[in-house]
Amino acid sequence: MVLSLNIQPLTKDAFAPFGDVIEVDGAEIMNINQGTTQRFHNLADVQTLDGGHTLINVFRGQPRLQPIGICLMEHHPLGSQAFVPLQLAPYLVVVAKPGDAPLAQDLVAFQAEADQGVNYHAGVWHHPLLVLQENHDFLVVDRGGPGDNLVEHWFHEDQSPTATLL
Amino acid sequence: MVLSLNIQPLTKDAFAPFGDVIEVDGAEIMNINQGTTQRFHNLADVQTLDGGHTLINVFRGQPRLQPIGICLMEHHPLGSQAFVPLQLAPYLVVVAKPGDAPLAQDLVAFQAEADQGVNYHAGVWHHPLLVLQENHDFLVVDRGGPGDNLVEHWFHEDQSPTATLL
Repeated sequence: MVLSLNIQPLTKDAFAPFGDVIEVDGAEIMNINQGTTQRFHNLADVQTLDGGHTLINVFRGQPRLQPIGICLMEHHPLGSQAFVPLQLAPYLVVVAKPGDAPLAQDLVAFQAEADQGVNYHAGVWHHPLLVLQENHDFLVVDRGGPGDNLVEHWFHEDQSPTATLL
Repeated sequence: MVLSLNIQPLTKDAFAPFGDVIEVDGAEIMNINQGTTQRFHNLADVQTLDGGHTLINVFRGQPRLQPIGICLMEHHPLGSQAFVPLQLAPYLVVVAKPGDAPLAQDLVAFQAEADQGVNYHAGVWHHPLLVLQENHDFLVVDRGGPGDNLVEHWFHEDQSPTATLL
């Protein structure tokens, strides 16, 4: 059995159960730097729990074969993880609410536009990076520090259907 | 009297007294996500002193009239501030080492390439955002929280020469 996920447009409202959409639309704006700069202020809740600190990294993603099989989901219990595209191309996001390991029917898929980032809150299940073009770079803001901050859940083919993005 | 700054190429070594160059070249690489992603790890020292927390923002800069007069410098005593370009265009960076208010001859100017970000460390004097094209967006990672985190120094024309970028 194969479950096909509907891919929704990414909006702040639809993504609210999972984290923040990092975009200028709807943001608080401050005019700074002698009027030469607009500051779109505080677009994401950066979480670094249990003695953690903030890391800035670049992730370079490669596309997967289509249709994309969703074989695992992961979450970070100790911190948020933000992805902001550094090249102008859309990408895909698959998430599920925090809690027990998700079933296939719990998954929600979004298409993020080139000018949208996402910030997964601590504990939110998400699929690893899903890009649609080669060498798609993202600035990633996440947590470093002590403790185990990665939980993976692999779907078993005989227990949970594999979801595919059409 | 007008002092013209030489604009240097931005390199990690040359920028080390002021902060981090955020770029993939020379970074520690981790292969993650089932081999589909390279993580260029921990590219900047994010500082949030005195009870601060990390903010993610977008700054949208507009170019200034050329030649650009350097009328003020600023620094943030309580935290670092990172700028990563979200569109592929170069920009300018003017900095001076931490300490007393800089003189014009203390200023150092760099041209950052489109795939380079900068992270000013706490206390490093820097000029506000200097872009070369309209509506140049940057992801900015800096500090929120209590305390006064902005110190400005304005140059007086009769005391310090105005530096201009040619």
